[in-house]
Amino acid sequence: MNELTAVAWDGDAVVYLDQRLLPHEVRYVRASTPDEIVGAIATLAVRGAPCIGVFGAYGVALLRGTIDDDEAFALAVTRVREARPTAVNLAWAVDRVLAADDLLAEAHAIAAEQAQIDVAIGENGLALVPKNARIVTHCNTGALATAGGAGTALAVIVAAHRAGKHPRVFVDETRPLLQGSRLNYLELRNAGVDAVLQPDAAAASAMARCGIDLVIVGADRIARNGDTANKIGTYGLAVLAAHHGIPFYVAAPASTFDFTLAGGDRIPIEERSAGEVTEFAGRRVAPEGAAVYNPAFDVTPAHLIAAFVTEAGILRPPYEESLGVLEMRREILRLRR
Amino acid sequence: MNELTAVAWDGDAVVYLDQRLLPHEVRYVRASTPDEIVGAIATLAVRGAPCIGVFGAYGVALLRGTIDDDEAFALAVTRVREARPTAVNLAWAVDRVLAADDLLAEAHAIAAEQAQIDVAIGENGLALVPKNARIVTHCNTGALATAGGAGTALAVIVAAHRAGKHPRVFVDETRPLLQGSRLNYLELRNAGVDAVLQPDAAAASAMARCGIDLVIVGADRIARNGDTANKIGTYGLAVLAAHHGIPFYVAAPASTFDFTLAGGDRIPIEERSAGEVTEFAGRRVAPEGAAVYNPAFDVTPAHLIAAFVTEAGILRPPYEESLGVLEMRREILRLRR
Repeated sequence: MNELTAVAWDGDAVVYLDQRLLPHEVRYVRASTPDEIVGAIATLAVRGAPCIGVFGAYGVALLRGTIDDDEAFALAVTRVREARPTAVNLAWAVDRVLAADDLLAEAHAIAAEQAQIDVAIGENGLALVPKNARIVTHCNTGALATAGGAGTALAVIVAAHRAGKHPRVFVDETRPLLQGSRLNYLELRNAGVDAVLQPDAAAASAMARCGIDLVIVGADRIARNGDTANKIGTYGLAVLAAHHGIPFYVAAPASTFDFTLAGGDRIPIEERSAGEVTEFAGRRVAPEGAAVYNPAFDVTPAHLIAAFVTEAGILRPPYEESLGVLEMRREILRLRR
Repeated sequence: MNELTAVAWDGDAVVYLDQRLLPHEVRYVRASTPDEIVGAIATLAVRGAPCIGVFGAYGVALLRGTIDDDEAFALAVTRVREARPTAVNLAWAVDRVLAADDLLAEAHAIAAEQAQIDVAIGENGLALVPKNARIVTHCNTGALATAGGAGTALAVIVAAHRAGKHPRVFVDETRPLLQGSRLNYLELRNAGVDAVLQPDAAAASAMARCGIDLVIVGADRIARNGDTANKIGTYGLAVLAAHHGIPFYVAAPASTFDFTLAGGDRIPIEERSAGEVTEFAGRRVAPEGAAVYNPAFDVTPAHLIAAFVTEAGILRPPYEESLGVLEMRREILRLRR
């Protein structure tokens, strides 16, 4: 089980790996109706910002072939596009597919590009990782999160490992859904990277006692000023990194940047159900009826981010300039398509 | 189930509430052998720094009555005293009982004093809580954690609630063992306090978005300069509070201060088993054989702590002075006994 494929096209359905069942079970599921596509995204069976972009792209291409009525199709597209609100890649990929003549070909293009983007992010980030680096990371940012070949933050770490830099990774378990324990640790181990799992609340201790050299995470949406929404806990890590003088990096494809938003306060933050916190694997761990604060994401202000690692290179402050260049580059690519 | 008794003496055994089973089951267990006493502490069936002090005091008094051989008794005492290394209250209580003529009477005195201390901590802390305060807290610090009447940090919160200050509490679930979800939330709700549960990694988001007014936690050991060991995650909260300009308070009885240690770097930090992190509610959540970083405690440097709330009043910086006064006060009490 060294290679896990998050999303694939099989001719008349989108096939996805149900990531909720990992690491115990590798189960592939076919989605072909709007309910199945929306459900896979909303329940986090398919998750990771670039990954739900690829999945949504295939989903919309599929629905165009199966729903004749334009109004019904438009309704289904809206449901897919809005299945989760925070990651912008989903809307970006759906819009890109809708703008194409051949929707399925465009979905294939998005998937193929993502694989190349992952590799480029890994190579570009290599320069940020010193030899024998001790790294803290959060949530899952491997191939499972991008439906690409290597992921985002994990692409950088694995590239450093393959380059002989011997990174040692402190993997946040990432409550409530444990994407760190279940997915990130699995992908790191499959790649042969030295990794230890830690409770999220142990990250500050690791920074104080274990000689952490850098923190690197992924992103769900980045505003034009560099403010970054990512899995809940990311903002706290960025504050802790600043306190310890440790550089904090965000690895993400250009599709994760939302140039229509001036700042992070405009990014919609999804609040998820109480059950994610009060239950685990169907077993209740809190008193019945407990009230819960369960935002799925938080926003890290740009001033806490030392650099972004993208397929177009490393972007450093001032972000007004470096993100402005990225925006033009993305527009040129769009116009050329 | 509004009052839970953590520890009680029943004539020929120490009875304890197995806190691992809460909130689902209220099961009282009798301990009368060294293995049973040490096991209850080591497995965290009995936990909370002042609580294991009271339990250890009764345990040693009990063993003095059942083990005739002095060498065997000394060995058993050492095992109890060292059943967990970080909380100093255990060693403090065991030593106090051993120094007394009537060991059982001394254990009863420690238990009775703890109940009064809890009340005093609650009353003394009241001044720190503004009306309608929004509060972040971590781990469990109620009566379950002290075997007293009200707890430490929770005593302050409940006192504020009873004084009509309407506090709203954001309760960290406190991985890996979920003392927040299972115990602290339960005790707050039993007291009628408005509380919401949150993943530990959501605390930074709550500070940024929810108008948090203060953070208050308990402690397992406080060095003479004010550096404080407490449940893993406490140090991170203190850094986050400083970043947001939120006062960070520690509530603890005088018995939690270790005046023999100059600073926090001397406090022994217990590392616990990988299984606490790789399993959740008895179910494995990480790949088999995952390596883990699982320190049970971290150390918060004194400069991040706005004040200590003790039964002797509120101690503010410079801690060299205020903790020095506490040390003298404790010595006077000891000499008068």
